[in-house]
Amino acid sequence: MTGTAAAEESTTADTLASFEKTSDPRLKELLEGLVLRLHGYVRELRPTLEEWERAVEFLTAVGQKCDNTRQEFILLSDVLGVSMMVETVNGHGGGTESTVLGPFHVVESPARDSGDSIDLMGGGKLCVVSVRVTSTDGAPLAGASVDVWQCTEEGFYDVQQPGVQPLGNGRGLFRTDGEGHLWFRTVVPSHYPIPTDGPVGELLRATERHPYRPAHIHFIVAADGHRPLTTHVFVADSPHIDSDAVFAVKESLVVDFGLVDDEEKARRYGVTGPFREAEFDIVVEPESQPGSEPERERESEEAGR
Amino acid sequence: MTGTAAAEESTTADTLASFEKTSDPRLKELLEGLVLRLHGYVRELRPTLEEWERAVEFLTAVGQKCDNTRQEFILLSDVLGVSMMVETVNGHGGGTESTVLGPFHVVESPARDSGDSIDLMGGGKLCVVSVRVTSTDGAPLAGASVDVWQCTEEGFYDVQQPGVQPLGNGRGLFRTDGEGHLWFRTVVPSHYPIPTDGPVGELLRATERHPYRPAHIHFIVAADGHRPLTTHVFVADSPHIDSDAVFAVKESLVVDFGLVDDEEKARRYGVTGPFREAEFDIVVEPESQPGSEPERERESEEAGR
Repeated sequence: MTGTAAAEESTTADTLASFEKTSDPRLKELLEGLVLRLHGYVRELRPTLEEWERAVEFLTAVGQKCDNTRQEFILLSDVLGVSMMVETVNGHGGGTESTVLGPFHVVESPARDSGDSIDLMGGGKLCVVSVRVTSTDGAPLAGASVDVWQCTEEGFYDVQQPGVQPLGNGRGLFRTDGEGHLWFRTVVPSHYPIPTDGPVGELLRATERHPYRPAHIHFIVAADGHRPLTTHVFVADSPHIDSDAVFAVKESLVVDFGLVDDEEKARRYGVTGPFREAEFDIVVEPESQPGSEPERERESEEAGR
Repeated sequence: MTGTAAAEESTTADTLASFEKTSDPRLKELLEGLVLRLHGYVRELRPTLEEWERAVEFLTAVGQKCDNTRQEFILLSDVLGVSMMVETVNGHGGGTESTVLGPFHVVESPARDSGDSIDLMGGGKLCVVSVRVTSTDGAPLAGASVDVWQCTEEGFYDVQQPGVQPLGNGRGLFRTDGEGHLWFRTVVPSHYPIPTDGPVGELLRATERHPYRPAHIHFIVAADGHRPLTTHVFVADSPHIDSDAVFAVKESLVVDFGLVDDEEKARRYGVTGPFREAEFDIVVEPESQPGSEPERERESEEAGR
């Protein structure tokens, strides 16, 4: 072993030893795992001092870009695929697949009744979204809370256009009826670029990546006795459906927002003229889902822990 | 492979593929290596969504704690042993060992002449520091610049006590004479705690780690045709010499700051009474140090790149 290799090993050993007295065993495990990987990264990639300084500057700029309506660290986690990976390892099978929270779930969504419109601007092309919430055994879940948020046809969330959009535009907190059902009126959201005026935008430009996310509507579904689910529904014919900047598309979450020209159906929703419609189920998993913990343990063992 | 494992692999593959068009090959290598390790961390440690949110909050707070005189991300890198590892992999052997820059090299040090005092407060116990700068072949280096900074006997840098200490206290930018020599008057610095009023302090408390650094003086030495060196000299009898909060102590950098009670020596320095004295060489490496690049390549190969 060269002098350098010995010094490298002792730095890692000293750092790991410094966490020995940590009383929270999970915190200890998370920090030791982090130190091992960070040190391994430096030993293998051998960044220069200038590269390390650039990384410190970049992370500092990411933190300083954050404010009440902008979370640049979530955005960084998103474009590195880390948010999606965290969502994936927290999925247990059986229910609707989860996907990333994203940086725009920043206000309490206004409570709304089934059938309400979440398009407070008006003037857009009508879309009806109809959702049924069930448990994994197919039983409809009454009284489930369904938090919805989406951007406009121009691709902006309310918080991105203060003074242009009223706060709460494109957002609603619904409850399912006795059949696990709810529906609302809205517009079809547009694909849009994630914010590129900060350090994450710099990173995308330096790596020649486009900043677009395919069109989607966000959902957080919570039902008694079930694990809460954070997910999207993606618009099937959206641009960039195959190259989401944050890697959040899962095939099972892509839904047809078809054009409906059917007077009978229009009457049922109390609307007039042709409209776009998306109909889908969201399946949430019971908290004591059998098989979920063993799967989690087994995968940890495979990974060599 | 379970559905979850397949989804995990495809998230990593998609993220890696997104960097394909990066034109700077080093940036591509650094980002791909980062993504592999971050994703591996999530797959093996399986953080919950709450743990991920806590990490995002923590990193955001670290960024927001930074200002002109406080660099909390360097501090975080320091307490995780990452700064020390970056220094170590950038050492090439033959010269004085390097160590961390630390967060307090924040102002241009004031130019001073050999023999000057960097203790602008006065009243402390006198210490004489005498340094000879040489190349790896032992040849003294004339005209080398030697940037020095240290804390007071109370353990504070000038920038930590605006209004108490004048800016530039404990700092000096010297040049070596024809024999590669310089000396200055100062006080023996104290051991001190790194700043604990920010998120890094929280981390230390949560892991029951003490925040102390053993007493030291910082040096950056730059000589024509030589690689610049960032290092410390540690005070041999300092508390915490064996448990530096940032893992920066190397045995070769520990120096005796002995008490001198010798009128002849005092006369030579133009001082009176007993004083502390530290005498040492700092050896810098020629820029085209033979053997340095091959060693770097070999170690990269060992690491399986």
